[in-house]
Amino acid sequence: MIRAGLIRQSSSGVYSLLPFALRSIERIEKIIDQEMRNIGAQKLSLPILLSANMWKRTGRWDTTGSELFKLKDRKTSDFCLAPTHEEEITQLVANDVFSYRQLPLRLYQIGRKFRDEMRPRAGLLRGREFIMKDLYTFDTTEEAALETYEEVNEAYNKIFSRIGLPFVIAEADTGNIGGTKSHEYHILSPVGEDLILSCMRCGYTSNEERARGITDNDGCPVCYKDSITSPLKSNRAIEVGHTFLLGTKYSDPLKATFAPENPLYKGELLSIQMGCYGIGVSRMIAAIIESSHDSKGIIWPPSVAPYRVCIIPGGDEPEITEKTRSLYDFLTSECDGLNDEVLIDDRMNLSFGYRMKDAELLGYPWLMIIGKKFLESGKIEIHNRHNNQRNHLEFNEIKNLFIECKQI
Amino acid sequence: MIRAGLIRQSSSGVYSLLPFALRSIERIEKIIDQEMRNIGAQKLSLPILLSANMWKRTGRWDTTGSELFKLKDRKTSDFCLAPTHEEEITQLVANDVFSYRQLPLRLYQIGRKFRDEMRPRAGLLRGREFIMKDLYTFDTTEEAALETYEEVNEAYNKIFSRIGLPFVIAEADTGNIGGTKSHEYHILSPVGEDLILSCMRCGYTSNEERARGITDNDGCPVCYKDSITSPLKSNRAIEVGHTFLLGTKYSDPLKATFAPENPLYKGELLSIQMGCYGIGVSRMIAAIIESSHDSKGIIWPPSVAPYRVCIIPGGDEPEITEKTRSLYDFLTSECDGLNDEVLIDDRMNLSFGYRMKDAELLGYPWLMIIGKKFLESGKIEIHNRHNNQRNHLEFNEIKNLFIECKQI
Repeated sequence: MIRAGLIRQSSSGVYSLLPFALRSIERIEKIIDQEMRNIGAQKLSLPILLSANMWKRTGRWDTTGSELFKLKDRKTSDFCLAPTHEEEITQLVANDVFSYRQLPLRLYQIGRKFRDEMRPRAGLLRGREFIMKDLYTFDTTEEAALETYEEVNEAYNKIFSRIGLPFVIAEADTGNIGGTKSHEYHILSPVGEDLILSCMRCGYTSNEERARGITDNDGCPVCYKDSITSPLKSNRAIEVGHTFLLGTKYSDPLKATFAPENPLYKGELLSIQMGCYGIGVSRMIAAIIESSHDSKGIIWPPSVAPYRVCIIPGGDEPEITEKTRSLYDFLTSECDGLNDEVLIDDRMNLSFGYRMKDAELLGYPWLMIIGKKFLESGKIEIHNRHNNQRNHLEFNEIKNLFIECKQI
Repeated sequence: MIRAGLIRQSSSGVYSLLPFALRSIERIEKIIDQEMRNIGAQKLSLPILLSANMWKRTGRWDTTGSELFKLKDRKTSDFCLAPTHEEEITQLVANDVFSYRQLPLRLYQIGRKFRDEMRPRAGLLRGREFIMKDLYTFDTTEEAALETYEEVNEAYNKIFSRIGLPFVIAEADTGNIGGTKSHEYHILSPVGEDLILSCMRCGYTSNEERARGITDNDGCPVCYKDSITSPLKSNRAIEVGHTFLLGTKYSDPLKATFAPENPLYKGELLSIQMGCYGIGVSRMIAAIIESSHDSKGIIWPPSVAPYRVCIIPGGDEPEITEKTRSLYDFLTSECDGLNDEVLIDDRMNLSFGYRMKDAELLGYPWLMIIGKKFLESGKIEIHNRHNNQRNHLEFNEIKNLFIECKQI
């Protein structure tokens, strides 16, 4: 990622996101925004600088340990840099929600989070400052909260499907977040920190952590109940999403309550049933690259590529420059989903070969070459980075390539 | 802003941005993105958590004083929460730029900044955690840097013009940022912290701070040079933008240098000429509201309104519900610039009068009422929040109202 000019290290586990990486992240955010909107979630933005008060009330000020960045302001009050926002959002909802009429409520944000990792590693994979999407849901009953949980998991399926890389969903432990039910979303990659066990027979999938002691080639515990022995296969994977059914773990101590529709007695208040749902947005970029590259460089899925097309002019003859410009105009105005998605590599002080190699390293889904051959035949040489195919197409034939991009 | 449900205080000077405020902020960001792109600036994202090293090299670790939030990580290394990013971006450019061929370069970001204000005040006007756009420019010569400075100031003019509120540009001091030339952009408001002095005759405008000792009704110092006495008028204003021509204040200590096109001697390196340019994005929301409201509530300029239209159904009869839905579909699909900009206030447990008052408080540019009168006449009652006019229009006549919204 450093060689491709995506990120630069500022300090251990802390990175600057350069323009290409940021574009890719904004892509992911757009997909998330759309799918969150489809399930009626509203976007807000909570502070990074959090007062210690509520963290002390839930006990996490002490239990989170040294992963929590702590600081004092000029009046020596305690603050932390948000690693997650259960306390903050629960407090917010506790102050504004009073009645069943205001529920269900689904609130999410996309922003910075901080965790003082003991051993930050592998660039954006485990950073100390990172970008997360976190959704918090609020329901009146356990059943409604469970339905919400299923609905959000469906939205997660859509998000990961749209990004377009193979992913697995595993049952997971709830850890420091707490709650009663939890799933992880993983992108498969040999450099992944997590080991995922899957049963080919029944589809049971679990994080090794949760499967406690069960490992590769052991029998599937679900099939075992049916007296069948089916060996589990293990795969390395990178966790990019996590869902938690929280129950009242946060609404109880922070008194996030509501008056029910049919109270048992006058003034009855019930605790709100919560869920929380994260996606590691900056980590996703790293996971995508780990899972989708070859010896030449990155292979971006078109859905999240910083740019979808790179045009490489073969020389600086006026005719080539002019045709390059025409192709650019044609792509950005006539082809679905390519507006603002096309780049021209006109660094003519660099050789054609260098620019080709650079474009392959950067991983544009489509490379288009306007050179001498084009001037002779009127056909553009197009490289598809994903399947390595080369085509020679005329302007009008190009359009069909991008019909599917409209939906992305 | 609290009453209108835009923000909630988390701690002193630290706020959560609720969905309406965030939508408005995303609007402003979009306008900024477009105008930055028009001057060839690339967007990136620098860390919030900054190592103290570079701040010590420029001397600002000590000179910034207690406004700087300082903290230590688990290895007790010094960090601060970024109040601004001159050090970080200069270091980044110093590591990646070597030759005049890579210049000019314009890099910007939109993100959180932190300042431990002694007296945080007035919500988002002076917060301890806030959102800023900051652009940094890199040129080979002083002349080129000055041209860049003028070009960015033109882009700033466009940004503030598009937002649509009266603003003034004042000569300003360079303060802790440093540099040789500086201008401030202000939105006029009686609650503003700054006092702006303007000469009606020659157009001279200056921040009182810079005008040192000159105050209201004193003679204009520019006109005085022509032996003319012209009294200055003072206006209270809120600073929302600031531009600085930096010279080599940061590139010298951080060794951001380049090999010039025509070196005087072999291996000659010159310091890059820099500029930096800020816009207070979250403060802008507060400034807009301070400058554009009446006794009923906010009057959003359409360019940055959270939603442009609110439809209020007069009752819950099936016919009204159906027509409300038709109007919603018509507006979002047939009217320019209204896709995703229309809200229906269908909280039918609240009275019509309450919802009308609430809509005026929230400041939607257009209110549309579908009630009994509509069923009789087929005309929709439309309130224009800006000029207080009421119109009764049929579906097809509505379209013309929004032709201008397309450009916003």
